[in-house]
Amino acid sequence: MATRQLTETGSLRHLIRLKGLDRAFITRLLDQAEAYQTPMGEPPARDQVLKGRTVANLFFEPSTRTRASFELAAKRLSADVLNLDVNMSSRIKGESLIDTIYTLQAMQVDIFVVRDAGAGIPDFITANVHPHVSVLNAGESNISHPTQGLLDLLTIRQNKNTLDGLVVTVIGDIAHSRVTRSLSEGLAIMGRNELRLVSPEGLEPDMDLYPGVRFSRDIDAALKGADVIMALRIQRERIKEQSSLLTNPEYLQRYGLTESRVQLAKPDVIVMHPGPMNRDVEIAGAVADGPHSVITQQVNNGLAVRMAVLAAVMESRQS
Amino acid sequence: MATRQLTETGSLRHLIRLKGLDRAFITRLLDQAEAYQTPMGEPPARDQVLKGRTVANLFFEPSTRTRASFELAAKRLSADVLNLDVNMSSRIKGESLIDTIYTLQAMQVDIFVVRDAGAGIPDFITANVHPHVSVLNAGESNISHPTQGLLDLLTIRQNKNTLDGLVVTVIGDIAHSRVTRSLSEGLAIMGRNELRLVSPEGLEPDMDLYPGVRFSRDIDAALKGADVIMALRIQRERIKEQSSLLTNPEYLQRYGLTESRVQLAKPDVIVMHPGPMNRDVEIAGAVADGPHSVITQQVNNGLAVRMAVLAAVMESRQS
Amino acid sequence: MATRQLTETGSLRHLIRLKGLDRAFITRLLDQAEAYQTPMGEPPARDQVLKGRTVANLFFEPSTRTRASFELAAKRLSADVLNLDVNMSSRIKGESLIDTIYTLQAMQVDIFVVRDAGAGIPDFITANVHPHVSVLNAGESNISHPTQGLLDLLTIRQNKNTLDGLVVTVIGDIAHSRVTRSLSEGLAIMGRNELRLVSPEGLEPDMDLYPGVRFSRDIDAALKGADVIMALRIQRERIKEQSSLLTNPEYLQRYGLTESRVQLAKPDVIVMHPGPMNRDVEIAGAVADGPHSVITQQVNNGLAVRMAVLAAVMESRQS
Repeated sequence: MATRQLTETGSLRHLIRLKGLDRAFITRLLDQAEAYQTPMGEPPARDQVLKGRTVANLFFEPSTRTRASFELAAKRLSADVLNLDVNMSSRIKGESLIDTIYTLQAMQVDIFVVRDAGAGIPDFITANVHPHVSVLNAGESNISHPTQGLLDLLTIRQNKNTLDGLVVTVIGDIAHSRVTRSLSEGLAIMGRNELRLVSPEGLEPDMDLYPGVRFSRDIDAALKGADVIMALRIQRERIKEQSSLLTNPEYLQRYGLTESRVQLAKPDVIVMHPGPMNRDVEIAGAVADGPHSVITQQVNNGLAVRMAVLAAVMESRQS
Repeated sequence: MATRQLTETGSLRHLIRLKGLDRAFITRLLDQAEAYQTPMGEPPARDQVLKGRTVANLFFEPSTRTRASFELAAKRLSADVLNLDVNMSSRIKGESLIDTIYTLQAMQVDIFVVRDAGAGIPDFITANVHPHVSVLNAGESNISHPTQGLLDLLTIRQNKNTLDGLVVTVIGDIAHSRVTRSLSEGLAIMGRNELRLVSPEGLEPDMDLYPGVRFSRDIDAALKGADVIMALRIQRERIKEQSSLLTNPEYLQRYGLTESRVQLAKPDVIVMHPGPMNRDVEIAGAVADGPHSVITQQVNNGLAVRMAVLAAVMESRQS
Repeated sequence: MATRQLTETGSLRHLIRLKGLDRAFITRLLDQAEAYQTPMGEPPARDQVLKGRTVANLFFEPSTRTRASFELAAKRLSADVLNLDVNMSSRIKGESLIDTIYTLQAMQVDIFVVRDAGAGIPDFITANVHPHVSVLNAGESNISHPTQGLLDLLTIRQNKNTLDGLVVTVIGDIAHSRVTRSLSEGLAIMGRNELRLVSPEGLEPDMDLYPGVRFSRDIDAALKGADVIMALRIQRERIKEQSSLLTNPEYLQRYGLTESRVQLAKPDVIVMHPGPMNRDVEIAGAVADGPHSVITQQVNNGLAVRMAVLAAVMESRQS
């Protein structure tokens, strides 16, 4: 029951996953995102494309950065924004998700931005909304985080001038990583790239989800020749059995991204992290702040990508 | 110490209860609400009438739908909106309600939208604000919820083309229902309607509050010939002694609105619910989603009614 | 490592403390604040000076009034406002403060409004932001609250027509009072004023922080001849050892500002309180609502002062 994301004329109605979009479509989204960027210190780009429209941020998981990014993206496109911290209100009264959606839809909300720890929630919502409503997945279980995937692609493209023929190494808590899933989908669409996954014991992914991708336990080998390194956050809040490993000060040395490990990659490697970071756990502070790091560029790209996606779904309604 | 709701020239200064308003006045409010409605899928109506004005949502009880409805109503009228979750801040510092009101008034808040579990809070506030400040009751104990009453009247009028000569049956947790109180006041003002109340044991209303209204325990008899059915939410959070009844799966069969019970009413009966619903407790999911249901229309009307009320109190200041 | 608050051309880049600003500069800020005031009942002043800019309210301590005041100030200057209740989200994921700042900065936030119980947090942030970002201190431990200081100066000036040669008596919980610190700095800059501090046992200040200021335990003597009285809130949430004193009904009589104590001051004395008040604890309700009270004027001035400060830091970027 995967959602049909495009309209019959090929414009974006929902964004639930990158899989199913084609290279030309993603390229246009990334181009539009770049068109929304301005140099740091100058006023951010603004557009009237969502003027009079309403965007509802339905965050069933706590989030500062993604919620803030979508909120500012919508406001800079002139939308009215409704923030709903759903834990705090409806759910204590026992209302079902679908009735919350029906209610907001009846208030003429145009776009739902949804984050939920449950798998399938965004697809469930898209299957139940009116034809004029769009749903954007802002993080779904360990399954999908498509705007993160797009911002990662944009960051790589800006630094490597290509999205083809690259070696991309992801290290860390891959088992819980929707970020890796979306990046993997995006890289496969955009070119012939080599994705390498490395994780500590207990945090390895189900490799059936990553056809054609190499898994390794040897972090040093996996970093050799990498064009891009993505270090992942240890998601303590999702790990039920807390292994002693995860709070061990040795973690960084054994599994984290240290300065000496960065040296194993290509000289012009870029270092990414989806944030929020546990400094000196999965990534050394010196790496996060070092010359290879493009972590704040990712954040800036995230806002631009979300503006591009919001604008795209609004355009799909006018066609 | 009931609040004087109208100015000397007959325009709306505060909205605390429907009682005391007359038929012509409510008709004008409902007409204005309809003027603010647009077809689903089209952009919502917008107006500049609150431009530069400030609306403060003071919700001392958690609420998603009513708060969101007032917030969007105010934004679509171009107001600045301040959301205050008062539990989280002032109250922990021991500030009295009246000082919170004085403070916000000194920040030039124009309209307070107040929800509180305590009886008399809205009247207390209206007795203490400056002549240029308006107070809207967004839910007061089990006493009053006037914008809900207006949206219910509008929904009935749109479906029955009249607010006179109707049989309206309310079933469920009437003891805790400010919704029923406001509907009762509204129906009495608008015409000669027959209101019937039915509730399970332990949830019956104080009938002194409903002069001339019939109470019954026989749900099937009370539904016979109804033009309108309103099913009420079991307000678990307000019920101190949790009777086993309330979580019993038999509740729907014994006291809830099932498809077969709907058949007892008139063929063109409409089914309403103020939300949030406990599906398959007080109302069958199939009824909520069925052909008689006007529940999402209520939500849409709620936003329009709140725009009309906000616009009306702002106009009262200019006269 | 005190922050450099002014740019090389003398305009305001950050506002962390009043100390270091000069009389002419503060006078201009107060004048600008007054220019933003309108009579009660008329629409508040509006300005386009922050149009397209983003203000982030980073409140690590709960606050209704200061957060609301900054939020409305920013909105009335046409800014986009992002409210971040940081306890609720980032911190549970273990992100460091500096990464939260880097993240928001990468989203092109222009101005951070920061409140934190920790000492040195605002200076730490100013030391780490880009040249185009400004930081406003909205309350720092028991150290500084500069916009409160400015609003208190403005309130005194409006009532006394001078900020020189005044006797100002502060009574109450001075140990925890950033309000007193900022007022002390402001009074010293603006003229030759006499500041007198009085507090109950256990709540006295470290007088090394108040050079040249007189501390007393004799509240009646300290009030004699006062032009201005500031009563402070007992900050129960900051007091670790709850002495029986603080909840004692005798507190008001022994240490609070009663009507008879107000009589000891000059006949035209003004009574101030930074709020939120514990009525009939540190201040009698009759004093708070009495003819000498300028407490709601303080609130109104607070909003105007914050507009002036926001406008000033934005101007500093254009020069």
